Amino acid sequence: MSLTLEQAQAIVAGALAEGRSRAAKPLAVIVLDAGAHPVAFAREDGASLFRFDIARAKAAGALGMGMDTAVLAERAKGNPVFFQSVSGAVGGQIAFSPGGVIVRDAAGCVTGAVGISGDTGECDADCARAGIVSAGLDQENAK
Amino acid sequence: MSLTLEQAQAIVAGALAEGRSRAAKPLAVIVLDAGAHPVAFAREDGASLFRFDIARAKAAGALGMGMDTAVLAERAKGNPVFFQSVSGAVGGQIAFSPGGVIVRDAAGCVTGAVGISGDTGECDADCARAGIVSAGLDQENAK
Amino acid sequence: MSLTLEQAQAIVAGALAEGRSRAAKPLAVIVLDAGAHPVAFAREDGASLFRFDIARAKAAGALGMGMDTAVLAERAKGNPVFFQSVSGAVGGQIAFSPGGVIVRDAAGCVTGAVGISGDTGECDADCARAGIVSAGLDQENAK
Amino acid sequence: MSLTLEQAQAIVAGALAEGRSRAAKPLAVIVLDAGAHPVAFAREDGASLFRFDIARAKAAGALGMGMDTAVLAERAKGNPVFFQSVSGAVGGQIAFSPGGVIVRDAAGCVTGAVGISGDTGECDADCARAGIVSAGLDQENAK
Repeated sequence: MSLTLEQAQAIVAGALAEGRSRAAKPLAVIVLDAGAHPVAFAREDGASLFRFDIARAKAAGALGMGMDTAVLAERAKGNPVFFQSVSGAVGGQIAFSPGGVIVRDAAGCVTGAVGISGDTGECDADCARAGIVSAGLDQENAK
Repeated sequence: MSLTLEQAQAIVAGALAEGRSRAAKPLAVIVLDAGAHPVAFAREDGASLFRFDIARAKAAGALGMGMDTAVLAERAKGNPVFFQSVSGAVGGQIAFSPGGVIVRDAAGCVTGAVGISGDTGECDADCARAGIVSAGLDQENAK
Repeated sequence: MSLTLEQAQAIVAGALAEGRSRAAKPLAVIVLDAGAHPVAFAREDGASLFRFDIARAKAAGALGMGMDTAVLAERAKGNPVFFQSVSGAVGGQIAFSPGGVIVRDAAGCVTGAVGISGDTGECDADCARAGIVSAGLDQENAK
Repeated sequence: MSLTLEQAQAIVAGALAEGRSRAAKPLAVIVLDAGAHPVAFAREDGASLFRFDIARAKAAGALGMGMDTAVLAERAKGNPVFFQSVSGAVGGQIAFSPGGVIVRDAAGCVTGAVGISGDTGECDADCARAGIVSAGLDQENAK
């Protein structure tokens, strides 16, 4: 079961609100369903042109590998040649930086993922989690 | 000058409201800036998986050729070989069906485009124009 | 909710049994989940090399457009320039020939799709439906 | 001479049985023929979305370079720039992690390859070899 448009729009709104509250750089926020297909997206004024692609690659990468990109980014540092080959194998659909966060339901099943790009990876990831919390979709698994 | 996220979200909301008012099939609505980069997107529950790509290709195609896809679709029927070669030349970033509508400012300058996919091309285009009108961005050029 | 590997393998087995029962040419059978990701695949000895790609494009195309490729193939004949642009917009992930059949649950929700290539489109589609039936997953919507 | 569908399905069944016997994470298992074209594939419930692509890139990479990916992964660590250029040169059809294992006949001729992704590379490779053994296709060359 994938998240709904209403849930996805709530995540986007919550993530952007968090970004403004901490004066983050302009953000791009995407929410993908469990199959990694776009459900909702917003790019703030002034965000640079690649933000859509990077945010999408963070969310798709998290779904594709089954873990948040904060974890993937750490692992990639220890085995860059493998993770770079993964990037090639999946046609560039992965970005090794925090900000790609998996969304799960109460049963722990993956329902989608959030991807944010614009500020530091850590700030992007914090805003993604804030959006998930504000949408009432926070689970241990997604923390 | 490109349209803002606020304007793009207003277009998306207006287009989806129009779709619901006429019981359209589930729609995907994208708004691109003047450089054909995504600003806002929403895919209604139940819309099929290609709706993002098709909506984007309608909006990008309208911007890329400088005219709404309703016009492009008509012209393509009369010269399919050329327009198919355009599709190849631009990496598939164009869809020959109504629903890709250019947005202009009061001076007639292109500020972005709306792309919708989900129902008939005519319905998609009507919803796109309704979204532009509801956002207060309607111009002769966009009609 | 996507179909399980057990269900997907039952569909593949049933489709191949149908193919043998009617002495079809060597077939390739793929089952995709609701997000168009591969779950199970089998290519019979002697099937030509493109069968994997064509079977996958039939199943992904059906999911992407929300209807079986038998219907899409008919529609494409009436508006080739649009449907060829769709092929470009989705990176070739669609094949306009019968043999791509959507699988739904009892509630009518899409759980995946079957794609078959090897014999005529009609025979491919019959084998796909036979596989769905033999797996006990037949619904009005899938007929 | 390439392996048959019957042999490929036996490898998949044996590899998945090994994975279950050691409580491996959900696996994706692909068997390619000597020309690197898919013959059989299965993705266990819960395996993440990129597992198909990674498993295929392991099997194709092993065939493409003529050695198991366990060997390639070691070599790549010592010369990352070259092996990353190979990844680019072959369009991403290689993954530098154990789990891609070549299958040979009694004469030592390559008949195909197995690719597995889901657990650690070492576990993936063990399951691949177990599948080959269970199918009665084990040769010194494949060990």
